[in-house]
Amino acid sequence: MENVSKTANVKRERVMNEFSDWYNEMIELAEIQDKRYPVKGMNVWLPYGLRIMRNIENLIHEEMVRTGHNEVLFPALIPESEFEKEAEHIAGFHGEVLWVTHAGEKPLEVKLILRPTSETAMYPMFNLWIRSHADLPFKIYQIVNVYRYETKHTRPLIRVREISRFFESHTAHDSFEDAERQIREDLEIFDNLAKNLALPYIVSKRPDWDKFPGAFYSLGAEVIMPDGRTLQIGTMHNYKQNFAKAYEITYETEEGTHEYVHQTTFGMSERLLAAVMGIHGDDSGLVLPPTIAPIQIVIVPIPMKDSPYDVNAYAKEIAKDLRTAGIRVYVDDREDIRPGRKFYDWEIKGVPLRIEVGPRDVEGNKAVFARRDTFEKFSVDRDKIVEEARKTLDAIMENLYARAREFLETHIKRVDTIEDAKKVFEDRRGVVELPWCGEESCGVEMEEILDASMLGIPYPEETAKIEGKKCANCGRDAKYVARFARTY
Amino acid sequence: MENVSKTANVKRERVMNEFSDWYNEMIELAEIQDKRYPVKGMNVWLPYGLRIMRNIENLIHEEMVRTGHNEVLFPALIPESEFEKEAEHIAGFHGEVLWVTHAGEKPLEVKLILRPTSETAMYPMFNLWIRSHADLPFKIYQIVNVYRYETKHTRPLIRVREISRFFESHTAHDSFEDAERQIREDLEIFDNLAKNLALPYIVSKRPDWDKFPGAFYSLGAEVIMPDGRTLQIGTMHNYKQNFAKAYEITYETEEGTHEYVHQTTFGMSERLLAAVMGIHGDDSGLVLPPTIAPIQIVIVPIPMKDSPYDVNAYAKEIAKDLRTAGIRVYVDDREDIRPGRKFYDWEIKGVPLRIEVGPRDVEGNKAVFARRDTFEKFSVDRDKIVEEARKTLDAIMENLYARAREFLETHIKRVDTIEDAKKVFEDRRGVVELPWCGEESCGVEMEEILDASMLGIPYPEETAKIEGKKCANCGRDAKYVARFARTY
Repeated sequence: MENVSKTANVKRERVMNEFSDWYNEMIELAEIQDKRYPVKGMNVWLPYGLRIMRNIENLIHEEMVRTGHNEVLFPALIPESEFEKEAEHIAGFHGEVLWVTHAGEKPLEVKLILRPTSETAMYPMFNLWIRSHADLPFKIYQIVNVYRYETKHTRPLIRVREISRFFESHTAHDSFEDAERQIREDLEIFDNLAKNLALPYIVSKRPDWDKFPGAFYSLGAEVIMPDGRTLQIGTMHNYKQNFAKAYEITYETEEGTHEYVHQTTFGMSERLLAAVMGIHGDDSGLVLPPTIAPIQIVIVPIPMKDSPYDVNAYAKEIAKDLRTAGIRVYVDDREDIRPGRKFYDWEIKGVPLRIEVGPRDVEGNKAVFARRDTFEKFSVDRDKIVEEARKTLDAIMENLYARAREFLETHIKRVDTIEDAKKVFEDRRGVVELPWCGEESCGVEMEEILDASMLGIPYPEETAKIEGKKCANCGRDAKYVARFARTY
Repeated sequence: MENVSKTANVKRERVMNEFSDWYNEMIELAEIQDKRYPVKGMNVWLPYGLRIMRNIENLIHEEMVRTGHNEVLFPALIPESEFEKEAEHIAGFHGEVLWVTHAGEKPLEVKLILRPTSETAMYPMFNLWIRSHADLPFKIYQIVNVYRYETKHTRPLIRVREISRFFESHTAHDSFEDAERQIREDLEIFDNLAKNLALPYIVSKRPDWDKFPGAFYSLGAEVIMPDGRTLQIGTMHNYKQNFAKAYEITYETEEGTHEYVHQTTFGMSERLLAAVMGIHGDDSGLVLPPTIAPIQIVIVPIPMKDSPYDVNAYAKEIAKDLRTAGIRVYVDDREDIRPGRKFYDWEIKGVPLRIEVGPRDVEGNKAVFARRDTFEKFSVDRDKIVEEARKTLDAIMENLYARAREFLETHIKRVDTIEDAKKVFEDRRGVVELPWCGEESCGVEMEEILDASMLGIPYPEETAKIEGKKCANCGRDAKYVARFARTY
């Protein structure tokens, strides 16, 4: 009975069917960013959006401290000469870098690029910093702005020319095995973060033709957005010694010999917020996980003329109790704005829990709770408010996660043939898994036929191996399951 | 007696006489920044330096929340067309802006500049955001990286081409009076911050020929560095309606008419950290105010062979008590490093208080406190440690502030003639105050004769007015006291 009412009240029709419009509207209405800045693909972070993003970043900082990464901050400009040291890397980014060529009226002696990512800025310094095996593993990170001059259609937080909240950790190790251990730690960090955002996801090992420029292999973590397209929200790369050789990053072993370090990176960005918006949102607006909501509870006093009860004072008392309990609470006591309008505003902004107090609540020593995720309303005794608030916020987290996991699971379909794969893309969208022989030529052909990208094979690799199936393209024995999706 | 010993132990000979060398050494030895990044005037923030700066920024964020400023984040790139709308502003920055001219191989249709400050990025959006008197006062801020292609000698944190921690608040008001109220609020915010950094300072109203490009008037807050040169660490500008007219930022009054807004800005940067380093540091390294020290107390266990007492366990117990009391504490239990070397390392890094524990301390239930600011050492009973630690950290703040105030006061000298001013610059350096008629020609001439800059007149202006004195340059009646200094 309870479950029925939950599902019944939550509408996601616009979110599913007109996702692009819904998303653009929410960016604006929930005051996440202003898109009217006069450079395409560069947007202004508004206070509310920035507060959510800062909360996400605080979760990242905590994980970094826990795992012994140190925070650094590198310049945003990289000399052309440093940028061009690793051949694959420069080839991968060359078409989309922004060039600083002049200072005042004068041309620069060495042209500078605005970092598209920081390998080529950091690794000349790694060369100076890393000397001995005692310096390893070496683990740093930064959250900065990076630039990629996208030629595709831009979209706030998702595809932009200035990623203004770009997280990147860079590590160096004494062996391939220790670099692999780092990748596992990255996956654990990512998993902790994703749980805190109530975001179920999948991890795929990218095909060689789509790995990060300069990487030995790349992993991508994806969510499925409401329109069925996947959004990459995390990447981990094992570089082996590729950059170490280009930047001469060596260390002295215990035996006194010199070896190149092994390196990894791990990246995330403001796309995490885009994923939260798309995956939890509904036709009434955002639905924020309590973990990152700038306001976890909004209290709306509903005064009534000629009532002897002071609902504003009562609301403030409740707010005080909740604040003391460590909950982020806001009392919306704006005058001249009707409660219905306030409900509407805070629903758009995704505040997880609303508490309404009217004269009857003051009289009865109660308050009405309204959950943003299910629209359920129920009455709570005054002396149970803090306890019930905590419980309800926890229940919201659980419900968001369960709902999102169900969506993810029902949007991944394993089939055997290209025809069936095509039908899935017509029908229900999402991720399609197909048997694959492992050859690039087959993979690329399937991408073309399906008008989709190969995300790669499920990770860890063991889970991707299959037997007794035929490659959906060439008909030879299949080695792996490969994932395909329309991507952002 | 106590005061004598304090002064006697603190050596500031190198800080005073070889400030430039000392400063560069400390940037490196205390691990604030790495200057070896391959672009002149752009440096890499190292973890320890960044942690101090983040603590300074947290104090700024707190003040911004207290005073109702909202945090935003603007793109770092500004289209040439927007940048050139305010004539004085563009003239003031034109020579030193960095130009982004190409994306990949292709020239951009509209060239972009890397922001040297954000007026020209923000005000096209103010034009969209501000509609009515109800939107005013409008108060926002951001902490971002900005670029000024300095042609002078660069110096970490002080004169750089990428200011990576640039604070700027921007406000809009319905009247000149309300903008003036904002300037007073800015001064109050600055004063709170400066007290938390134990930095005494002076505020001067800049002469017209040195005000911010586009401003109606500019205030500068300065400290005097150990070599007697002043360092500007805060600026407040009243723009009147100069930018509002250029960017058409109007609001509807209660009467329904449309008026241009009045605007102000307030700026600070990583120079705050440079001031902390220079003003509190001594020949043994940094001395950090406890308010911003990443480690407020370092505990160094001093084990002795064959002793039955476990000094490491004892140190960790003390650390736990201190941490529970909200103090940032670190136990340096590194093996194979002698205590003397540890003392030396943490003295360079400016940790305010060191606690040493040896077997005799464990036996006697005591610990030895060593103050970084005075080098005083004294024994404290185990059960008084938390209380004494708090008291000592407070005492360190007070002592740092008192010491710095004395230095400031003894380095400002008021004289009547150019000759006496010259002598001051030879003798003792610092700020010289001279009677001035108020004419630009005289002011500029005095700058040349003294080989110093006019900081301006003391602020508030009433405190700058003098009577019965003659202008030190032209001999006519002086109207103001004007401040001159060699500046960073």
